[in-house]
Amino acid sequence: MRRIIPGMLGAALVLCAAPRAGAQRFDLARCEIVDLTHPLNAQTLFWPTSPSSFTLERLAYGETPGGYFYAANSFCTPEHGGTHLDAPIHFSASGLTAERIPLRQLVAPLVVLDVTDSAARNPDYRLSPADVAAFERRFGRIPQGSIVALRTGWEKRWPDRKAYFGDDTPGDASRLHFPSYGVEAARILVEERRVAAIGLDTPSIDYGQSRDFMVHRIAAARDAPGLENLMNLDRLPPRGALMIALPVKIEGGSGGPVRAIALVPRGKGR
Amino acid sequence: MRRIIPGMLGAALVLCAAPRAGAQRFDLARCEIVDLTHPLNAQTLFWPTSPSSFTLERLAYGETPGGYFYAANSFCTPEHGGTHLDAPIHFSASGLTAERIPLRQLVAPLVVLDVTDSAARNPDYRLSPADVAAFERRFGRIPQGSIVALRTGWEKRWPDRKAYFGDDTPGDASRLHFPSYGVEAARILVEERRVAAIGLDTPSIDYGQSRDFMVHRIAAARDAPGLENLMNLDRLPPRGALMIALPVKIEGGSGGPVRAIALVPRGKGR
Repeated sequence: MRRIIPGMLGAALVLCAAPRAGAQRFDLARCEIVDLTHPLNAQTLFWPTSPSSFTLERLAYGETPGGYFYAANSFCTPEHGGTHLDAPIHFSASGLTAERIPLRQLVAPLVVLDVTDSAARNPDYRLSPADVAAFERRFGRIPQGSIVALRTGWEKRWPDRKAYFGDDTPGDASRLHFPSYGVEAARILVEERRVAAIGLDTPSIDYGQSRDFMVHRIAAARDAPGLENLMNLDRLPPRGALMIALPVKIEGGSGGPVRAIALVPRGKGR
Repeated sequence: MRRIIPGMLGAALVLCAAPRAGAQRFDLARCEIVDLTHPLNAQTLFWPTSPSSFTLERLAYGETPGGYFYAANSFCTPEHGGTHLDAPIHFSASGLTAERIPLRQLVAPLVVLDVTDSAARNPDYRLSPADVAAFERRFGRIPQGSIVALRTGWEKRWPDRKAYFGDDTPGDASRLHFPSYGVEAARILVEERRVAAIGLDTPSIDYGQSRDFMVHRIAAARDAPGLENLMNLDRLPPRGALMIALPVKIEGGSGGPVRAIALVPRGKGR
């Protein structure tokens, strides 16, 4: 829905609807900015087999001889923990490394699929083709180039490892239980709808009991990044928000910490 | 310039101009997305006195017993190096830590002040009140809440340490020469115009020969973050772009790697 009215103020004027499903226009003054990112701290959760976690080392903190305050730190972290990006190379030898992912795949209209009820009944729940079909009947076809966020309700369990991963045995990833994408639904989203990226509020775009990580492999094969351990998905509308998920620009990285936010047109949030 | 036409499509419709100086509206489909971020790699520059630099450690790379490819790394880095954010606590004991900076200060209309010519003649050049006044005569008053980027042309010297810092003596920060903000211009921008953040394409919001880091202290006292070692500032218009500078969400951090991008309405870029 657009009408061009030329000539006014020397510029084309665009008659545009308030942001709606699939809209590409955002009025910053009329948007809420929602942070979808868990903070990085000593409680940040990593995969059970991760050799390390996030550590912050203080380099300076206090008054200097020059009479002013100064503080600085350094930090270390595996790429894959906390709210983070999976670059396609994480599961594909020919996949894009983190710094090469086109920004259009990281700044895009956001679609939120909600399987909270199903996941509450079954911690091994996986998004199904029927879930995608039900969403599209209600909200319209998921647009090419959009970012999909799967809401499972799991973010409320963060950072309790046993509740969030389903198990807290150190070094053991065989007994994990948490919901995620199903293989067929992932194929529909990535291969047919050709979405830009897929994310969710659990540790992995494959469910806890996955052994073959097929969803990772399907997404990586199409150079679609993953976004894991998102939060605040309960504050997003099914459609109409803009996702901005900007990862640390690690050259050759397989992923890394991401700061993910959403611009939500006022009146659209839940 | 706005007219509300109620009732159509059940939503208020807004007659809005194409993005212009100070505009808050952005049409993603009509914007170029410009990356303002240097990649993090072994060449990434840190302050001469930094005890370490960016390191990437490979954790896995290759075929797994499961028959699929898998790659992962971990990394370590000081907060202050490469394209990064200075949180206000970097130079103020009561300043905000990185994770607490309001997102409105990191997603805001962008103003680009260009001192390339002055800096080419004098590597100790500092933005002056006269430079700010000249910009405002030509492009209008710098809006409250906008982000200022100072373009000096220094990004072309990256990552040559001697050219970029003016000296490459290990551990010695006393002989640095690069341009930046001047103290009085910083006061005008931060205290009078009340901009959200100040950034530039050199290593520091204080010039190379600064001993008292007054610009850092002025910005920190007003909780205005700094953005250092930006790139691609030559691709930005003086006004009309949107800056999105999202730092790693380090709890208690004094700063950290930032992924900074700009949405530039087509036809507005240089």
